Amino acid sequence: MSFSDPIADMLTRIRNVAINNGTMVSMPSSKIKVEIAQILLEEGFIEGFQVVEGNKPHQKVLRIQLKYIDERRNRRPLISGLERVSRPGRRVYTRSTDIPWVLSGIGIAILSTPKGVMTDRRARKMGVGGEVLCKVW
Amino acid sequence: MSFSDPIADMLTRIRNVAINNGTMVSMPSSKIKVEIAQILLEEGFIEGFQVVEGNKPHQKVLRIQLKYIDERRNRRPLISGLERVSRPGRRVYTRSTDIPWVLSGIGIAILSTPKGVMTDRRARKMGVGGEVLCKVW
Repeated sequence: MSFSDPIADMLTRIRNVAINNGTMVSMPSSKIKVEIAQILLEEGFIEGFQVVEGNKPHQKVLRIQLKYIDERRNRRPLISGLERVSRPGRRVYTRSTDIPWVLSGIGIAILSTPKGVMTDRRARKMGVGGEVLCKVW
Repeated sequence: MSFSDPIADMLTRIRNVAINNGTMVSMPSSKIKVEIAQILLEEGFIEGFQVVEGNKPHQKVLRIQLKYIDERRNRRPLISGLERVSRPGRRVYTRSTDIPWVLSGIGIAILSTPKGVMTDRRARKMGVGGEVLCKVW
């Protein structure tokens, strides 16, 4: 993880807050991060997200509200893992026929495709491949 | 405006809340509406937006926080006008060379192009045309 990989930074921030049972995680916003947040929301991994003006001009802040489930008196984050796949230094692309499954379908992969950022499931259905941004489960 | 035109519905809701000096406006969320909200935020028209789970499953709620400016003791919404251009029944497309100006550049047009949803300014710079979704000023 480094500042030259904003998506890895996003995943790390979420991971750190989830480990500490925190609810909100903030980070500098970007278009791709909002698209990832939207997929996490649609797939039920988070409660919601917010984009607001930051302190610096032109720098928006993305705030993600994590989701928790109560399980036998234990409160645990719904996101149990996040993994960066493609990286700036080592891009990982997949054809529509080779899209990886995450934990046999319990988790999701998020792909950047010519038809937009989408889950592995949707990419398979639409028959498009692309860059495998990350896996979430 | 009708329910078969969600973008017109979005603009109408923002307009109504702005007229009544309200701060927050909620609506059913969708990918295109979040993209429009993101452009409104980047262009400084709103304070921020939020996407959260709704009451119904799979129905997310988009909440937009309007921006106000104080002008000679008068508080007025920063958005002074919104206009739907292309409509489901009458689509309006433009070539990159014919992209309309909104109040000589004070306002913006939001276009859906093959390179994504963007402002008129960005579309001109990138040399892409597309569907003229709406104008905001």
